[in-house]
This record gives sequence, C-alpha cells and structure tokens, in this order.
Amino acid sequence: MLVVTLSMIATPFVFAAEERWLAPRLIKQPVKPFDAIDADGEPPVIICGFGRVGQIVGRVLRLRGIPFTALEQNAAQVDFVRRFGNKVYYGDPSREDLLRAAGAEKAKVLVVALDDMEQSLRVVEVAVRHFPHLTIHARARNRRHAHYLKDRGVRHIVRETFDSSLRLTDDVLRALGLPQDEARHTVDTFREHDERTLIRQHAVHHDENRLIQTSRQAASELQALFEADREER
Amino acid sequence: MLVVTLSMIATPFVFAAEERWLAPRLIKQPVKPFDAIDADGEPPVIICGFGRVGQIVGRVLRLRGIPFTALEQNAAQVDFVRRFGNKVYYGDPSREDLLRAAGAEKAKVLVVALDDMEQSLRVVEVAVRHFPHLTIHARARNRRHAHYLKDRGVRHIVRETFDSSLRLTDDVLRALGLPQDEARHTVDTFREHDERTLIRQHAVHHDENRLIQTSRQAASELQALFEADREER
Repeated sequence: MLVVTLSMIATPFVFAAEERWLAPRLIKQPVKPFDAIDADGEPPVIICGFGRVGQIVGRVLRLRGIPFTALEQNAAQVDFVRRFGNKVYYGDPSREDLLRAAGAEKAKVLVVALDDMEQSLRVVEVAVRHFPHLTIHARARNRRHAHYLKDRGVRHIVRETFDSSLRLTDDVLRALGLPQDEARHTVDTFREHDERTLIRQHAVHHDENRLIQTSRQAASELQALFEADREER
Repeated sequence: MLVVTLSMIATPFVFAAEERWLAPRLIKQPVKPFDAIDADGEPPVIICGFGRVGQIVGRVLRLRGIPFTALEQNAAQVDFVRRFGNKVYYGDPSREDLLRAAGAEKAKVLVVALDDMEQSLRVVEVAVRHFPHLTIHARARNRRHAHYLKDRGVRHIVRETFDSSLRLTDDVLRALGLPQDEARHTVDTFREHDERTLIRQHAVHHDENRLIQTSRQAASELQALFEADREER
C-alpha cells in the first residue's frame, strides 16, 4: 500500500509515474513487511490504487494544492514511484485499520481507483461499513462492475474506458467528414442514452434473460433517438 | 476475428455486448478454423478489436447508419456476440490478407481498438505498409504505447483510461466544493498540459534519464500554469 503523505505533496510530482511500463524490471517482489502509515495532517482525499487512473487524480489534486493520501498494493509500482523521489508505502487496501490509519475518519472523499474488480468491491464494502461519511468515487472496469458498485451504494461511478472510447468515436466521425458540432452531438446523445441504459440494466442485472431484452429495447430506443435527431434537422 | 458485415448493421445491436463478463462461461476455446470473411459492400470503417472500446465505436457508427467491418480474435467474445443474434467471424487481425478481405483497400478509417499492445503495433505496421491510404485511429494502453504508435506514424491516439480519469477527477473536485466551471477549467488545463507533455516526452522516450528530467520540468510547468490561473482570478 503506497501512502503519499502530506510531505510529498510539496515535492515535484511525477508525470511518467502514470505508467506501469518500467515496473517489469522492478518486479522481483520485495519480501519486506507492509509499511506503517505516517499520515501527517488531515488530507480530505484518500486515493486507493495509484495506477493509471489514481495517478491522474493525484496529479491534479496536487497541482491544485489539495492534500491526499494514496494507497497502493503493488510493490513494484511503489518502487517505481520511489525512484522518482516520492515517499511511498504499500499494503492491503481493504484493511479497515489501514484505511483508518490513512485518515479515513477525517477525510471527505475516497477514490477507489483499483484495477481489480474484486478488490475494489472489498474496499467499498469496508469503507461503507466503517466510514459511512465518506463520499466514494469509483473506477469501474465495465458495466457489470458498475452494477456491483451501485449495489453497494456507490453513486459516483466512472467506467474506465468509456470516455476515451467516446473521444475516439468523435475523432472517427470527424475523419469521415461529419462537421464538428454534429459529431459532438452524436456522441453526447449516445453518452446520455448509454448512461440511462446502464441505470435501467442495473435493475435487472442478476437476470440474464431480462438483460438481453433490455439491451434490445435500448438499441431500438437509441435508433429512435437518432431518427428524431434527423427529423429535427 | 469477428467480422460484423453490412448485413448485421441492420439488426438490433447489443448494448450488453460491450461486456466480456459473460465470456468466462464460454471460454472453452472452440477448435474450429478461422472464418472466411464475407464482407458485402464497402464499409468505410474497419474496427480491429471489438472489446470495450471497439464496441462503443461500432454502436455509435451503426446508429449513425455508417457501415463498418469489425475484426476480433477472441472466440469467446465472438460467441458471446453471436448469442445476441449478430453475424460474426474471427481470426488473426494482423494478417494482411484478412485486412484486405475485410475491405482495407476501399475503407477510409482503420480503428485499432485492440487491448494487447504488441498486437496493436503489429496491426498498425501491417496497415501502414500495405494500406497507407487508411487513416488510423488507435487506442493506447498508456503513454509508452502511445509513443510506440507515434513512432509508427499514427497521428490519432487516445489513451484508454485518460478521459475517464479526468472525468473522475472533475467529479472529485466538485465533491470537494469547487464550483463547476473552476473544476472544468482545472481539468481542461491539465489535459492540454499533459498532452503537450506527452509530445515532449515522445522525443526522448528511448532515453530514460531524460524522460525523468522532462517529467519534473513538466510538473514545474503545470504548477506555474496553476499559479498563473490563480493570479488571473
């Protein structure tokens, strides 16, 4: 569990640290025990998981001067960050005592940016049970993960590849000759539609047959939305 | 290799197909040979990789009535899509003959939405060599992958978790009490800065020591940008 304490907030941060690509050469797993947390002050944000997603959150927070504590289990990743001059710790992020030591009682926001779905759900369960005052913002791998996060009461969920997929689609539409505003409108309409669909699917996500049916209904609905768009123009 | 031909464009599409989560139960790898491609017409877009990213592109294209051909190697995923009533094929997406059969000579845009970095680079190499007229839009796993895509001449690159990370960060800033426009401005400034940093890092991406130095310079630069923002207000 990587812990970025207040003291590191002031040090030059690491852009390349977003990457896990140097990790393989560091991957000889260290045998050292989990680090003790040394969280000075009361950072309002705890970031659980300091990979591609968590590091973007951390970098922006740091650059706004907002202190945070980051927890990361991957020792190779921790060592990589260490190499860039940051103070780091590691441990199991779903341990209640570690979250407490990291300042969960005083924090406002818990960012669950873990890559692993099961670990993400475990952290959410522990946080909801022991620190119900925290606002949880979670990274979801896919729709199913989003459903399970919702089951556990998480209201702020971002699907990890959804927004980039929409940006890629917007680029493709413009490469095909669509005017910029039309491409954007298409993508925005789709986004809203898909998020509504996700909510609708959540109600039936344990029932596969109904999920299939809902998907078809959703496809027809989006088709109708685009036809309505075409009529409007 | 999954091939979605023109004929499936007209069928109800699959929202839940974005997911790989039903795949495990289908994962008994089929022993059947790769399918022959049966690409009617001349779709302007070929989507290589029909996972979380490729399916979003495909769904939006379909709903705009833009035909596409999709190629996917994961047979389990293909079978999953089949279950929803779509016509599908599979094979090795970096084979020149398969790209040709899928319509690469007549297409305008090649979307390389593959999950696997090495496979993504192989497809790009084959496409650049044999079908240089194609505009390539690529999904990158991380900065390093983006650098290697750029080395191969790809100009349209989207990092797969970058945009969602920024949206999550925007949500967190607002949860901490930042006004909506200030949160958005922070995130937009960071995005532009980070994309400039990526271009700058590309020039030195084979030289690790210089990469580290550039990262620190970039951090200082962004800090200065935020200080300038603060002075402006």
